[in-house]
Amino acid sequence: MRYSDRILSTPSSFIRDILKVTQDPSVISFAGGLPNPISFPEEALKESACRIIDNEGGKVFQYSTTEGHLPLRQFVADKYNKNFGLNITPEDVLITTGSQQALDLIAKTLLNKGDRVIIEEPGYLGAIQAFCMFEPEFLPVTLEDDGLDLKKLEEALKKERVKFAYVVPNFQNPTGLTYSKERREAVCALFDRYDTVLVEDDPYGELRFKGEKLPYIGAGKLPHSVLLGTFSKTVTPGMRLGFIITQDKELMNHLVTAKQSSDLHTNIFSQYMIADYLAHNEYQKHVDKIIALYKGQAEAMLAAMKEYFPAHVKYTEPEGGMFIWVTLPEGQSALDLFHKAMEKKVAFVPGDPFYAGKTNVNTFRLNYTNSTPETIREGIKRLAEVL
Amino acid sequence: MRYSDRILSTPSSFIRDILKVTQDPSVISFAGGLPNPISFPEEALKESACRIIDNEGGKVFQYSTTEGHLPLRQFVADKYNKNFGLNITPEDVLITTGSQQALDLIAKTLLNKGDRVIIEEPGYLGAIQAFCMFEPEFLPVTLEDDGLDLKKLEEALKKERVKFAYVVPNFQNPTGLTYSKERREAVCALFDRYDTVLVEDDPYGELRFKGEKLPYIGAGKLPHSVLLGTFSKTVTPGMRLGFIITQDKELMNHLVTAKQSSDLHTNIFSQYMIADYLAHNEYQKHVDKIIALYKGQAEAMLAAMKEYFPAHVKYTEPEGGMFIWVTLPEGQSALDLFHKAMEKKVAFVPGDPFYAGKTNVNTFRLNYTNSTPETIREGIKRLAEVL
Repeated sequence: MRYSDRILSTPSSFIRDILKVTQDPSVISFAGGLPNPISFPEEALKESACRIIDNEGGKVFQYSTTEGHLPLRQFVADKYNKNFGLNITPEDVLITTGSQQALDLIAKTLLNKGDRVIIEEPGYLGAIQAFCMFEPEFLPVTLEDDGLDLKKLEEALKKERVKFAYVVPNFQNPTGLTYSKERREAVCALFDRYDTVLVEDDPYGELRFKGEKLPYIGAGKLPHSVLLGTFSKTVTPGMRLGFIITQDKELMNHLVTAKQSSDLHTNIFSQYMIADYLAHNEYQKHVDKIIALYKGQAEAMLAAMKEYFPAHVKYTEPEGGMFIWVTLPEGQSALDLFHKAMEKKVAFVPGDPFYAGKTNVNTFRLNYTNSTPETIREGIKRLAEVL
Repeated sequence: MRYSDRILSTPSSFIRDILKVTQDPSVISFAGGLPNPISFPEEALKESACRIIDNEGGKVFQYSTTEGHLPLRQFVADKYNKNFGLNITPEDVLITTGSQQALDLIAKTLLNKGDRVIIEEPGYLGAIQAFCMFEPEFLPVTLEDDGLDLKKLEEALKKERVKFAYVVPNFQNPTGLTYSKERREAVCALFDRYDTVLVEDDPYGELRFKGEKLPYIGAGKLPHSVLLGTFSKTVTPGMRLGFIITQDKELMNHLVTAKQSSDLHTNIFSQYMIADYLAHNEYQKHVDKIIALYKGQAEAMLAAMKEYFPAHVKYTEPEGGMFIWVTLPEGQSALDLFHKAMEKKVAFVPGDPFYAGKTNVNTFRLNYTNSTPETIREGIKRLAEVL
């Protein structure tokens, strides 16, 4: 056989096919997962681009270090120390080519074929795809309203060859769910006993429009805690700037080696540009604008769902982030519904790609960050007609 | 064991350690592999940064397609069609996060553990490192003055599970050697019989300062030809923009899947920026400036070597690119020489990391692109004192 087993066993990108059919401009699409363009500080980034070329010259165009641009790593360390009482240094931060690369590097560093990975069910499809490349056995653990099912999590942790668990504690993709404080503590206690790497991915954490900020599950507590973050949801996804935080020095050394073999280093021009933007602008004020927008959009969608959806259709009520998760009565197919909805010119992502082993599920994901409240209302009304 | 076998078996980066000790500003360093900053068209790139933000707005900051920015893929296709009489379309071009990522994606797509890869001996260390991550058996084939040893190549191709061969036909890193026309044809004929993927990596091909441009070995001829290119040596390495060209549609589909799982897509801001730069500037004129500089530097180094080196020390005479390869008498250690040379404040890279299985070799690499002819002369003189 010409190809690797890993590539032959990777599912073709279901979501790409979905997004293709929803690109018709007459379709109201809740299918995407794009941040709203309000999150791109265009003028300020233009100023930064000019300033770094004027001030830094050739350095912004030359090869650079694998670990990343020091001022950017310092900004990340300072932010997490200030916001979460952590005690990290720039040496604990590795800049990655988006969070997607962080997923690739973690799997590359930890997984032999057949090793086990604990994932949330449903879980982030980009993570499932990245991990697939290293041919693990997935151990899906049900994601309940306030976090992972503890009994099932412990059963999974007891198995052999469990290398790491991957969780999204805040406004999860696809469900919009957030782990409660109590559940975070209980999950942390379990990991403390089983000595497995816990990867917390937090792309949406800053986009909280309701409720109170919560501490991370493992960061600052577990010796093998790994925290992932990104500038994709608050500054620009197009520049592919994410980061891995871990105070496990041995793990960090291996991640740097994996990163070097994968792309040498992350685009240094963009690292300078974002670091300059952060140094010259009020980042939190900018984030607050995004939060205000998403709050209104989420409220509009939830209000319309309350008004139009039948009672047997259940859905999550996110406190932040970009997604709402809908559950149809058992036995109903979200994929069938997708085709009916497309006839009404409204689109969403059927739940299938968010499960490592299930198909034709009764769940689907709605995104609200790229439509006006009026369009959201109209789209939900149309969708309700086929429920 | 907590970590993957692949990460535990990857050699720590020898060259990084070397580069650290050579950073002392009083050292004349021929150890690096950096393009000269003359290759960064700073002012033109600044204009492009402003223009794309003004003209394209949010698109340059948003998520984008895995395959890459269409105008950039079109530029690449046009250039290769014009310069090499190929017949490729933008669909045959995948933009990668530097050529290093191309190496990662090819290995990811083709290799199961224990599969075989043919490499040049000596060969490019970044490729050896990238392929290592997928745990192949390396089949090193001697690189002679005019290309791969044909007898050894055929012996290697006859083995089972040989997935691909990786070659650098022009001004190879580390040797500076270029395959002759005849050897290219003979290598192509062999691959045609054995139906193995041939990966030709050509980062330096445009930087020819002597002799005539030669056709590729397999591009446009072999059904499973893969060609790699980059903007790192002629515009900017810091933005990590490379590309894979192949007309094997099935292979391309798998590479796109591997790319999506690795980092979703390459930095789209930089793709727009470089495409705009190429559309608004005379690229070839810019490349000609780099060629003129490197020509003078290479000539200065070769002249000094001729003057100062003893006759028992052999070296290559490159027709382009960035490197000269030196061979000491058999049994002498380039690593021992490195330590003696550092006492004289002159540095190079001992040959060891360019071999998949040998250590303490009698060869080393010299880079000439980052010193003036005067400094080059002085450095070679000092080096000759310890030969």
